[in-house]
Amino acid sequence: MSSMVASDGDVQRTHEIAEAAKRASRMIAPLDEARRNAALEAMARALETASAELMQANAEDCRAGADELSSSTMARLKLDAAKLAAMVEQVRSVASLPDPLGRRLDAVELDEGLKLEKISVPLGVLAVIFEARPDAVTQIAALALKSGNAVMLKPGKEVERTAVALVRVLRAALVEVGLPEDAVSVVLGRERVKELLGMHALVDMVIPRGSKALVEFVQANTRIPVLGHAEGVCHVYVDRVVDEALALRVIEDAKTDYPAACNAVETVLVHGEIAAGFIPKLVAQLQKRGVAVHGDDAVRALVQGIERVADWHTEYGDLAVSVGVVASMDAAMEHIHAHGSSHTESILTEDTAAAERFLREVDAAGVFHNASTRFADGFRYGFGAEVGISTSKFHARGPVGLDGLTTYKYLLRGRGQMAGEYRGANARVFTHRRETR
Amino acid sequence: MSSMVASDGDVQRTHEIAEAAKRASRMIAPLDEARRNAALEAMARALETASAELMQANAEDCRAGADELSSSTMARLKLDAAKLAAMVEQVRSVASLPDPLGRRLDAVELDEGLKLEKISVPLGVLAVIFEARPDAVTQIAALALKSGNAVMLKPGKEVERTAVALVRVLRAALVEVGLPEDAVSVVLGRERVKELLGMHALVDMVIPRGSKALVEFVQANTRIPVLGHAEGVCHVYVDRVVDEALALRVIEDAKTDYPAACNAVETVLVHGEIAAGFIPKLVAQLQKRGVAVHGDDAVRALVQGIERVADWHTEYGDLAVSVGVVASMDAAMEHIHAHGSSHTESILTEDTAAAERFLREVDAAGVFHNASTRFADGFRYGFGAEVGISTSKFHARGPVGLDGLTTYKYLLRGRGQMAGEYRGANARVFTHRRETR
Repeated sequence: MSSMVASDGDVQRTHEIAEAAKRASRMIAPLDEARRNAALEAMARALETASAELMQANAEDCRAGADELSSSTMARLKLDAAKLAAMVEQVRSVASLPDPLGRRLDAVELDEGLKLEKISVPLGVLAVIFEARPDAVTQIAALALKSGNAVMLKPGKEVERTAVALVRVLRAALVEVGLPEDAVSVVLGRERVKELLGMHALVDMVIPRGSKALVEFVQANTRIPVLGHAEGVCHVYVDRVVDEALALRVIEDAKTDYPAACNAVETVLVHGEIAAGFIPKLVAQLQKRGVAVHGDDAVRALVQGIERVADWHTEYGDLAVSVGVVASMDAAMEHIHAHGSSHTESILTEDTAAAERFLREVDAAGVFHNASTRFADGFRYGFGAEVGISTSKFHARGPVGLDGLTTYKYLLRGRGQMAGEYRGANARVFTHRRETR
Repeated sequence: MSSMVASDGDVQRTHEIAEAAKRASRMIAPLDEARRNAALEAMARALETASAELMQANAEDCRAGADELSSSTMARLKLDAAKLAAMVEQVRSVASLPDPLGRRLDAVELDEGLKLEKISVPLGVLAVIFEARPDAVTQIAALALKSGNAVMLKPGKEVERTAVALVRVLRAALVEVGLPEDAVSVVLGRERVKELLGMHALVDMVIPRGSKALVEFVQANTRIPVLGHAEGVCHVYVDRVVDEALALRVIEDAKTDYPAACNAVETVLVHGEIAAGFIPKLVAQLQKRGVAVHGDDAVRALVQGIERVADWHTEYGDLAVSVGVVASMDAAMEHIHAHGSSHTESILTEDTAAAERFLREVDAAGVFHNASTRFADGFRYGFGAEVGISTSKFHARGPVGLDGLTTYKYLLRGRGQMAGEYRGANARVFTHRRETR
């Protein structure tokens, strides 16, 4: 076993590990799909075989955290036979996803015998910072390997023993199939985060998976591209011409299906013309489901005992919602652009022209018509796997599947052509014949 | 004329201008192609009409710079009838490019009556920092408008009067066709750069066009995504089985066609087996064209009077080149990964298997076989326009066309579906039927 696994408190130098990850990434990037899938199958088998060892490491984490951790954190941390089986199953399901590499994104003949091809390739080295979930280790390692990337994992303190044991098993599986173990490594300790964030020459993408505070810290402290989002202040706008029953059920779903999710609705905006009829019903229905409704003055005039909205840029992440009245769809869009986080915005209306205008004009990763904001999700979108959700406009936006872990390169195959031939008196002329797209 | 144009030394607050640009960007983003093209045509006509005014502003810049500027800078700065005509022609040619917006990048039916669509949309606000070129103003404004983006231009000091005059004309043209003039604005003064780089809430992309020092400064001082590259240390690797005549002419082209370009070759690596025969011919041919050849010890043993390579990570940007001998293609790839800038790398060989391995394994924006590195260029690639060249792996890589100024959003059209329906005992099942891709 290489010394690259930091275990038993033996924390290796982060830079050394990152350099090893970079070397490993260059070795796994060109592998064909069959070899990457074989490695994933080896990982799955190794996890099954190592069950006892993994449970033991996890038991130590659980014992160490017993006094300090909340019951929900303990539940996430605890590894049992069912969870391990699900983790193994997930690794196998990642193997069965379509190959994100080597996709021909474009092909142009520049001239006879001079062919340009644009193909998808891995990013290189991913650094993933996550919290108390053992399943994050195997899922991230599987997604990274499937997409030809090396990965450096920085687990939360609570799950360190489990993470080290899991990575040891995964690395042994890589060696077994003749691949570099340094394609998966683990670094331990809070100080590692700052170190990782400074290594833009070695790390190609940082994926923070955790609290809003963690994501914001990462975004503010690195030049490395970050895949993640700090907040989801999603809106539902209820237009003038609306099917009230549809609106009530969609808003209830958007708020109560999973209030802690980033795609849960935080603010409902209602067109002034229907406010008097609709808002009392909406408030009653939400309150029946235990939702604390906050309102603007118009809402508070319609329904007694509603608290005033303190800040329209609030992500409650809980059974609470802001409700406001707007004079027009334009006002709704202005509100959304001023207070939203460009995550997911939905319009509820029977007026198709209004809906299409909303879809066209609202600037967000997801813009929906007559559907719950909760659909903004990689699995629901059919990506097979979700690497994260991005509210940045760069690289990947919205739910991000395996493609988000790739970039592309241009291949040009010629016969000794020179650029100088295409200039001057007897210049050759580019054909620029696109073959496929 | 709005006060948003900073003119006559009246420098407006950058933030105010950026907010106006953001508002304008939301207005132009949803415009259909015909309206954007009409605006470009109005711009082209307005530039033709304003010829005298533009020449006068430029004459002032030229007078002011006459004592300080180099003759090459003066040549770039000077606006004459021919250059203005070319600028007008370029604006019209941008109008004729295929629309980068509204492209359907994906379409998936999630369930009956629940359709997801992924379409290309503008980034929002671009900030472009450039140097002494009047033609940069019109080209950038045209590319921005074609792609539905607002743009803030920060010209070099030498070209300020010309830039202000050009932007005044472009803004008047926007107003004439009923579009917000703040879609194109100009900010003046060195201090503006730092201010722009801090505005990640308003500016969606920064494009530095200028010296390596400028690009590096921008990259190191902003959280806003940067489209640009600081360096191009491109390699040509001459493999064991090579057509010598082909290799000599491609290397000559890659070095001498335009030595200051980022895609010119800086380092030639030669396989040891052919070094003794090939290197003397290569050196003689390059020296005949005025190229200063630097070599490693092996090269210096083969040819008298060759200077030692000081640093393999050198971008000469001039008629100079490093030449080295490597023991194998693996050693060449290792050298390229260690010393290159991931811009463009070319292998010259008659061995197709070796070439394909090189294309697969080398990690760079462009990897070529038997072609000059000088082909790495948006026009040669057939993009119609080049926004820049990226050596980053994120968003856009390599030469970047109009697509590089876009992102995408997901549109979901439903009939009131709730996420909760797809879970639990009688859960609906997603169909995930891909319509096109």
